[in-house]
Amino acid sequence: MPISEIDKLIQLLSKLPGLGPRSGRRAALALMKRRDALLLPLIDALERVADTVRACSTCGNLDDADPCAICRDPRRDPASICVVADVADLWALERANAFKGRYHVLGGVLSALDGVGPEQLSIAPLLRRVEAGEVKEVILALGATVDGQTTGHYLTDRLHDFDVAISRLAHGVPVGGELDYLDDGTLIQALKARQKV
Amino acid sequence: MPISEIDKLIQLLSKLPGLGPRSGRRAALALMKRRDALLLPLIDALERVADTVRACSTCGNLDDADPCAICRDPRRDPASICVVADVADLWALERANAFKGRYHVLGGVLSALDGVGPEQLSIAPLLRRVEAGEVKEVILALGATVDGQTTGHYLTDRLHDFDVAISRLAHGVPVGGELDYLDDGTLIQALKARQKV
Repeated sequence: MPISEIDKLIQLLSKLPGLGPRSGRRAALALMKRRDALLLPLIDALERVADTVRACSTCGNLDDADPCAICRDPRRDPASICVVADVADLWALERANAFKGRYHVLGGVLSALDGVGPEQLSIAPLLRRVEAGEVKEVILALGATVDGQTTGHYLTDRLHDFDVAISRLAHGVPVGGELDYLDDGTLIQALKARQKV
Repeated sequence: MPISEIDKLIQLLSKLPGLGPRSGRRAALALMKRRDALLLPLIDALERVADTVRACSTCGNLDDADPCAICRDPRRDPASICVVADVADLWALERANAFKGRYHVLGGVLSALDGVGPEQLSIAPLLRRVEAGEVKEVILALGATVDGQTTGHYLTDRLHDFDVAISRLAHGVPVGGELDYLDDGTLIQALKARQKV
């Protein structure tokens, strides 16, 4: 029978993305059964992360040092900034090993519905970074959603007066994707942006 | 970019049932973004559980007191013991509010394949509880799997010499189940155990 302390743990675990009340219970049981192999190491890891991890004051990445490892890395081109909505997007690009410049995490996208305006996002710090002069290229790596594209247009406007090249990610057929399963919007974009072979 | 402390956290979170590397990353990000609302309370809850929760020395249930809340509860009939393989099964029966006696958690089922013999399970403590004399009924609430049924037969043999009524859960059509989707084994059992109306 779940009781107070265990219940509290289950409630918190259930709030994690991908978990619900049922999987929260399973996770709590797994932790209690594997005290030395899982429960105690997890407490330790969470405490270290809570103690050390902060948002980078330059780019907004999460790291245990400020500036973060990417902003500190001299091999990464400071002239090229890739703008992403979220730290998860930055991680995805890093996993793909796709980019050798630096990043800027907006902390979301503009959304009239959710009441997210330019002040709620890290846009002023981005403009200051560009204004400082070292940046020559800004890549807008935002989702191909209405809000992502709106945010991209807004940033393009704001960056217009600076001497930087602005680009956005290509739209088209995802690698491994079958035409049959793609939506009309993607097919239209892929056709429009067709490339000579 | 995931780095050392964050990576360690992701690895541990990925080991939880229902989570993998991808959802482990999402969980770690959610925790770091919601430091006060999620990360710190989760550390606190895990520490309390690690400090207080133990297996009940009578029945094997997990609780922050020993004997557990169920074994302590005077309203629960000590003459009736429901034998389950796992604490998760005990929780499921408690959620269903299905049983007003006490429990005994075996800690698994007999399995020749996995090398689980009677010594690995909490069978001797069960026999001692029955031998003590207060118990009049043992309900075997084990899964309808080969290993679960083998364990049930083994326990029936071992309990044979004691003056206790032994029963097992009914097999049949699950409530809400459609015949069309049921396996042959369940249909055969349901037909065999048909009840007069």
